[in-house]
Amino acid sequence: MTATIHRIGRDTPPSLDPLMTLVAQDMNSVNAVILDRMQSRIPLIPELAGHLIAGGGKRMRPMLTLACGRLLEYSGVRHHKLAAAVEFIHTATLLHDDVVDGSGMRRGRKTANIIWGNSASVLVGDFLFSRSFELMVEDGSLKVLKILSHASAVIAEGEVNQLTAQRRIDTDEEQYLDIIGAKTAALFAAACRIAAVVAERSEAQELALDAYGRNLGIAFQLVDDAIDYASDGATMGKDVGDDFRDGKVTLPVILAYARGNDEERRFWKDAIAGHRTSDEDLAHANTLIAQRGAIADTLDRARHYGQRAIDALGPFANGAAKDALVEAVEFAIARAY
Amino acid sequence: MTATIHRIGRDTPPSLDPLMTLVAQDMNSVNAVILDRMQSRIPLIPELAGHLIAGGGKRMRPMLTLACGRLLEYSGVRHHKLAAAVEFIHTATLLHDDVVDGSGMRRGRKTANIIWGNSASVLVGDFLFSRSFELMVEDGSLKVLKILSHASAVIAEGEVNQLTAQRRIDTDEEQYLDIIGAKTAALFAAACRIAAVVAERSEAQELALDAYGRNLGIAFQLVDDAIDYASDGATMGKDVGDDFRDGKVTLPVILAYARGNDEERRFWKDAIAGHRTSDEDLAHANTLIAQRGAIADTLDRARHYGQRAIDALGPFANGAAKDALVEAVEFAIARAY
Repeated sequence: MTATIHRIGRDTPPSLDPLMTLVAQDMNSVNAVILDRMQSRIPLIPELAGHLIAGGGKRMRPMLTLACGRLLEYSGVRHHKLAAAVEFIHTATLLHDDVVDGSGMRRGRKTANIIWGNSASVLVGDFLFSRSFELMVEDGSLKVLKILSHASAVIAEGEVNQLTAQRRIDTDEEQYLDIIGAKTAALFAAACRIAAVVAERSEAQELALDAYGRNLGIAFQLVDDAIDYASDGATMGKDVGDDFRDGKVTLPVILAYARGNDEERRFWKDAIAGHRTSDEDLAHANTLIAQRGAIADTLDRARHYGQRAIDALGPFANGAAKDALVEAVEFAIARAY
Repeated sequence: MTATIHRIGRDTPPSLDPLMTLVAQDMNSVNAVILDRMQSRIPLIPELAGHLIAGGGKRMRPMLTLACGRLLEYSGVRHHKLAAAVEFIHTATLLHDDVVDGSGMRRGRKTANIIWGNSASVLVGDFLFSRSFELMVEDGSLKVLKILSHASAVIAEGEVNQLTAQRRIDTDEEQYLDIIGAKTAALFAAACRIAAVVAERSEAQELALDAYGRNLGIAFQLVDDAIDYASDGATMGKDVGDDFRDGKVTLPVILAYARGNDEERRFWKDAIAGHRTSDEDLAHANTLIAQRGAIADTLDRARHYGQRAIDALGPFANGAAKDALVEAVEFAIARAY
């Protein structure tokens, strides 16, 4: 029987450990590719890229590629380069995101744009992005190139869409889901799907892994967006309240605004427009969000997508790989508690 | 006989007209691809991209792909998509460059970063870059993908290298040539080379066209850098003196500094460090550069690379295509007069 999110009698909280154990050996090879291919004769490139890459990210996306390879009993090594390519795309988008958002902290450290400036972050992001395509070309699968070049375009569209929605309180849940589906879930989906391509599985299995990754990605982002209103900087490893101060309209805000009275709506309009950015304003926002049940319901939505991710694994054989992928979903959601 | 740069008895200045006439019909198809593939359901993307793309650029790089196709008597249409991909890479780098340099004018118009902000320029650049890879994947040649993904990585390295050299008066001619070879000439080279790939010509012909493009690109950038100290904004279509104020150490500065007396060197050190940015300082810089023969010799260097570009065409049959490619080199250099 496939495990579900609401497991009964579980005595330990869900963790990423099974996933990490499952892919540990493959991950060593991926890390070697990452370290090798972020090098350049221009010293600033590995210096800046290394700051972020060595900065303690979970490497969730390459782990998913590797775990899906395991799920399919793929015994080759092609996915090592491709998992590194996926991580490079992710790293490039993080570098550009931090410039776009003017972020000062990520993964508990100063961001690259703070240390080396926006220009260097933009250009090193471009380098990593190009390098990811070089890795894919070396692998030589046009199908993988198609999946990841398309995902990259969708991510960029999602980022522009998010920028367009910024400071617009009239952003609704549909547009929000559209944005996170593009900016976050598209790469999760692609990371999983390419494992089926290298393992030469059917289109149906490709699509099943795509669905797993996409729904996990949506759940993951929903929880991230909930945490931004229900956590402190130490837990999160980044500046908490960033979404609030940046006027990003995430689901907790959409729900609190939709459910709020006139006075609350006025507050949200002002806040998202950028007129309420103090610590007190953030505290008030957190209170309103809690009172309107917006965190609880954001997490409910996350559980919905998490369950869909788990159910997408239905066609695959039970075993350690499937268990680890299921627990990764449970972990993604349990992070919020 | 192959024409040379110092043609005798020529009665009209060299122009891009023969090149534009040669590729006019193909270029219509390329423009259709460009317009079609810069579309997105996120309106800001075609709006911003269209501002730059419709902004009167010469489309030098896609023209080169098309003209090299003609030179090789290629009769297919694959190079239309690929020429559009090349232009998208170029457009993406321009968008990012203008953010990096904080530029306010390009091609005689306000830059996208001034109108829509840095964030939008970064993200739409990412979109165009991803889209260029989607176009290449549709074409399906791994060889082309390899050439252009490598060129993209080299361009980004060149841009980072330029950033590292900025405000460093100790930058020498070798490092400068390294930078422009990467940031400018690599895409010229790739744009020409891929024509030989789609025409299924020999490695030797690929390399000959690569050499043509690379040397033309270096000449082109040398002349651009000379013009920045010997022109006015109306001619150039961008802010003149940008390199000076940005502390970019281009060849005119390198030569003037190397040949200058102690007082002149002090001026250059101060200026490149960012302490002399007034109009009077720029006028003084222009005077010193002229006195030291630095413009004349920068253009001499450009002629050297231009001649190498022309000689690289030696193996190919004479005719309208070759004549147009030769005159494109002559035009690139004559722009400075």
